[in-house]
Amino acid sequence: VRVVNVPLGHRSYEIKIGSDLLASLGNECARLKLGKRCAVISDTNVAPHYATFVRRTLAKAGFESALITVPAGEKAKSLKTLATCYDQLAVHRLERKSFIVALGGGVVGDLAGFVAATYLRGIGFVQVPTTLLAQVDSSVGGKVGVNLKAGKNLVGAFYQPRLVLCDLDTLKTLPEREYVSGLAEVIKYGIIYDAALFGKLEHSLPELTKRRTKILGSVVARCCEIKAEIVHQDETESGVRALLNFGHTIGHGLEAISNYGKYLHGEAISLGQLVAAKLSSRLIGLPTDDARRIARLFERAGLPTRLKLKGSERSRLLAAMRLDKKVSGGELRFVLARRIGKTEFGHSVPAAELEELLSQST
Amino acid sequence: VRVVNVPLGHRSYEIKIGSDLLASLGNECARLKLGKRCAVISDTNVAPHYATFVRRTLAKAGFESALITVPAGEKAKSLKTLATCYDQLAVHRLERKSFIVALGGGVVGDLAGFVAATYLRGIGFVQVPTTLLAQVDSSVGGKVGVNLKAGKNLVGAFYQPRLVLCDLDTLKTLPEREYVSGLAEVIKYGIIYDAALFGKLEHSLPELTKRRTKILGSVVARCCEIKAEIVHQDETESGVRALLNFGHTIGHGLEAISNYGKYLHGEAISLGQLVAAKLSSRLIGLPTDDARRIARLFERAGLPTRLKLKGSERSRLLAAMRLDKKVSGGELRFVLARRIGKTEFGHSVPAAELEELLSQST
Repeated sequence: VRVVNVPLGHRSYEIKIGSDLLASLGNECARLKLGKRCAVISDTNVAPHYATFVRRTLAKAGFESALITVPAGEKAKSLKTLATCYDQLAVHRLERKSFIVALGGGVVGDLAGFVAATYLRGIGFVQVPTTLLAQVDSSVGGKVGVNLKAGKNLVGAFYQPRLVLCDLDTLKTLPEREYVSGLAEVIKYGIIYDAALFGKLEHSLPELTKRRTKILGSVVARCCEIKAEIVHQDETESGVRALLNFGHTIGHGLEAISNYGKYLHGEAISLGQLVAAKLSSRLIGLPTDDARRIARLFERAGLPTRLKLKGSERSRLLAAMRLDKKVSGGELRFVLARRIGKTEFGHSVPAAELEELLSQST
Repeated sequence: VRVVNVPLGHRSYEIKIGSDLLASLGNECARLKLGKRCAVISDTNVAPHYATFVRRTLAKAGFESALITVPAGEKAKSLKTLATCYDQLAVHRLERKSFIVALGGGVVGDLAGFVAATYLRGIGFVQVPTTLLAQVDSSVGGKVGVNLKAGKNLVGAFYQPRLVLCDLDTLKTLPEREYVSGLAEVIKYGIIYDAALFGKLEHSLPELTKRRTKILGSVVARCCEIKAEIVHQDETESGVRALLNFGHTIGHGLEAISNYGKYLHGEAISLGQLVAAKLSSRLIGLPTDDARRIARLFERAGLPTRLKLKGSERSRLLAAMRLDKKVSGGELRFVLARRIGKTEFGHSVPAAELEELLSQST
């Protein structure tokens, strides 16, 4: 078992990464002295696989759990599903010392985390991410929230879990498309922060694609380490944490204009990162060779690399980006790469520049 | 102008109390370097009186404000109104540096504060309380939230404002019943923390009832000081802050079983405090004379002091109290008074004791 510490004072917590970890959930919660009652929030994809097992390990450790199953997919990150969750917590009489277990991917983690952040003004919360994307990104760092029709994650909070338990075995049952989507975030860590990781991914992609536990363990742990370092430096994204948004302004825009239906998150940010890399080449001199390596790795991983937008889609994309949380003074700001492993945040990008780039067929 | 500081590290803020303060709102927001865009959230009672004036002072100081008017009354503290507010903020393109002005009573402050706490994971927030209850209690200390059908304030956050501006002149237009309701919280501060304040209230009640600016200024400021002291010691209610809930477990229960329609908050906690005083006499020896002074002051203030419940209402009240956030391990815990000015939290009260007391006609 690999352990990554997220150092945030009295809100510090551990990320545990390894095989066969689900079985230890009950004991881990007991160790954290969480209250007796809890709710496991999961979705219709994940609950059939793991909910019974998870509740059994909780029961063995003396916890009474209720199960709340939400629909699978991004649409569950809505105010409507949120209201359903709250009502269930009231029915099951959760109290201030009770806690919530998020069992699923990024959607479940974000939703369940926001439920935990706001029910009774905040109750305990344990992340059990079961997708690659959630294990390397969304379950760590405390960003939780739901979407509005107007945009993704417009409602939310910074709220840290008490523990993140990444059981690598749960990745084995992940549909191929979901798994590949998660690789987009993995590759992102290489681009924004760690050239050595990027090189390792180039080298080990075949192993990683086969979901070998050994390479998965080391890659997931390294991604979590990077995220923990960044979150430690800047919990509420007033600075360096913005680096994690590389490719995300465009990615979120793409998700929004397709009504969260066409692209998985990783697919959208794969395209977003490629556009950001092109902007980086034009505006701050990302070497052509680095841009090529980036495009090549996304392609080899099986992620979408071609973005063709009609004129009307381009306008809607630009409008959606303006609603992004990262907008300041009405100006679009981007994370750009100077080279692989070295990125900078807060670059203002002229709308015309972006529009021209998006109008080129790529 | 009286200034009370709420010391909470980098989230410290000032409460300003005085006449004719609304006119200074724009400059105060400029001094805090808040972003250019903001939304004023108010209700159908308060907006017609003050919204135009408030927006004009904001405009003079260079701010662009949108006005969001919600229905007056406790029912606006709902997930439904919350969703409406979020949508409006998106329409008006509020950004991370934008802020929200809560212009109104406790309902508006709690709702608008929760909107601010959660929109874009938290934006700036200024309280402009226009009721006595909001000025002495709900606008200070950072508790924000909305109600569920299952209970009051079940969804919320701890989120501190950047400034609280108490313009005493706004109290002059308050309906009598609203004003008197606010006195229930004022009296509470005397009981829980400050025997001298209690004595002063006994002595100055006629002046206070006439809403004289001088006595109002000193009383509102003292209540805010007490609340600031308590919140400073215990922001998230893991201890001493619970004192502020004197009378509130029963009060919230009464509000819930009457579907927030029969009692104003101050009326409900007036009754709640009287029951808590009786429990205090029985269980921890609150002197009979103190209990009598408490009952007498509520009565003189024009607050309800008689509670008659049918058997079915009693059962519903007890059930509602069990859903209260302050329940721990299924046990009802109360703030009880040892004498006026000296209270203790965390007293476990046997359900039978409470039921018997509630069954007596009082």
